[in-house]
Amino acid sequence: MSDLPKSVRINEEGPREGFQFEKGAIPTARKIELIDSLSKTGLKQIQTVSFVPPKNVPGMADADEVVKGFTRSPGVRYTGLWLNDQGLKRALATGKLDVTGTLSLTASEKFLLRNQKRTLKENLAAQHAMVKMYKENGVPVERAGLMAAFGCNFEGDIPVQHIVAMVQQMLDIGAQYQLDLKVVSLADTMAWATPLSIKRVVGAVRDKFPDLQISLHLHDTRGMGIANAYAGMEMGVAIYDAAVAGLGGCPFAAHRGAAGNVCTEDLVFMCREMGIDTGIDLEKLIESALLAEEVVGHPLPGCVMKGGTLDRLRQKIREAA
Amino acid sequence: MSDLPKSVRINEEGPREGFQFEKGAIPTARKIELIDSLSKTGLKQIQTVSFVPPKNVPGMADADEVVKGFTRSPGVRYTGLWLNDQGLKRALATGKLDVTGTLSLTASEKFLLRNQKRTLKENLAAQHAMVKMYKENGVPVERAGLMAAFGCNFEGDIPVQHIVAMVQQMLDIGAQYQLDLKVVSLADTMAWATPLSIKRVVGAVRDKFPDLQISLHLHDTRGMGIANAYAGMEMGVAIYDAAVAGLGGCPFAAHRGAAGNVCTEDLVFMCREMGIDTGIDLEKLIESALLAEEVVGHPLPGCVMKGGTLDRLRQKIREAA
Repeated sequence: MSDLPKSVRINEEGPREGFQFEKGAIPTARKIELIDSLSKTGLKQIQTVSFVPPKNVPGMADADEVVKGFTRSPGVRYTGLWLNDQGLKRALATGKLDVTGTLSLTASEKFLLRNQKRTLKENLAAQHAMVKMYKENGVPVERAGLMAAFGCNFEGDIPVQHIVAMVQQMLDIGAQYQLDLKVVSLADTMAWATPLSIKRVVGAVRDKFPDLQISLHLHDTRGMGIANAYAGMEMGVAIYDAAVAGLGGCPFAAHRGAAGNVCTEDLVFMCREMGIDTGIDLEKLIESALLAEEVVGHPLPGCVMKGGTLDRLRQKIREAA
Repeated sequence: MSDLPKSVRINEEGPREGFQFEKGAIPTARKIELIDSLSKTGLKQIQTVSFVPPKNVPGMADADEVVKGFTRSPGVRYTGLWLNDQGLKRALATGKLDVTGTLSLTASEKFLLRNQKRTLKENLAAQHAMVKMYKENGVPVERAGLMAAFGCNFEGDIPVQHIVAMVQQMLDIGAQYQLDLKVVSLADTMAWATPLSIKRVVGAVRDKFPDLQISLHLHDTRGMGIANAYAGMEMGVAIYDAAVAGLGGCPFAAHRGAAGNVCTEDLVFMCREMGIDTGIDLEKLIESALLAEEVVGHPLPGCVMKGGTLDRLRQKIREAA
């Protein structure tokens, strides 16, 4: 228990990861409304959109308008996602986003071949091109991300030593280009992790690279999200991606097997009740979660938004005393 | 991590705790169908019904018929719940249940006063009467249970030392009546627990009573169920109550704040993936979970029944290789 961090930083992914996933069209104004609502919660980073070709992700066709529409709040970083030079240019053109680069590898070659039609080797080479692109555009690269770090639907279990080796590959690129890589994000892209594998993988990466901060990107497809986050905290991990109301996932049959990120307010609730500071106002975040449910028009999987906070119950008890 | 148990025993509570909670009437035959389905999964204990006055819990009016209807499977214990002599007599009269007694206290006096119109002292006295009732009926008492052990909606946080003292009170009654109390069940009745409070309370009870087996009864109202179970396992807890598909809870507004027990198949999934034996066939259990959803007629919160198992994915990968 001694490794539990004193504070945890949560990067909100809901507007991007969630809306990207929704089947129906969501009006641009409502996306903006949710981002503005999240801006008032104390979150320090909100991923707002992805700049990907509309033919691939129709729900993100209005990305530029969404960015134009929301109101920046002081102290909050607003990020976006892109996969190539064209996307990066769109992000820079908004003049409104906090544009930083990420070195990104994928632990599973079979997943890579399916999703990006690249081998591990080709993807590694592509990262050199990405870094050069960032350098040319004066965009700092402080983060390395590894997808499918806990297992893959197409390749199965991934050996821990393979993960450590791939983190090393990213650090090698960083050294070659004199990048100041501070954070490595380990993503459980296909929800294979358990608390035990979180401990094993994080432990191995932490042992090998004690100066790197580790960040976790967790999916809740098999209900392990919060338990995996807790296991991460027991290993000292202090940065998490999460999605308000569990956006991106839905308890309905139509979405079977595609649950979203770990739910932001459930994660904040756990931190708060364990004495770990997040800087986030949980009641305000629940308002955002309820708004998210209204915006997508169907129930979302978050629990604390339905069950309520203990602080509110404690207050009622005090008032009744 | 070293305290993780090698095997875990899961007591299925779905048919009793789940159906008790449902608003609409569920046909007796369908309750029986679910119990029979659960009997084939490898579960060693299934709580089937509660013998409470139909005017209090209309959904349990058919308890005797349900017990009459299901088929006992060898090696499975079939249990029931009762709160007084009349209920116990009904359970014994079925001639078909594994009838054992539980000493039961509640950590919160305010909750007791609301729910049973008793003070802590009155409830303690009532346990003496219960034990005498068990003795007269030749019913063994091997289990002590403590409700609201992690916090209470009406009293707030409960000091750990109060929990330890109440476990001591139950052991004192046990000694007085020469009971062979083997297990103490700590119930997070109102879903106040976090992994950290699980560790604190379980740790304190374990330290004081090293020979007692600890069992956890967890609710998932605030999404902490699986994480709390994991924290229990890290403290060596090897007995859990759970409800198939998360019966008793529902992600819909109509049931806000009343989520059920931690979900059986999600718990089994976590154990299986962490190398902890449960003796349960996860694929068969998922069939029961899907049946439970069909029987209640609305989505239930279980995740693995929607996300699927990793074993099945591994098998597909092997077949494709």
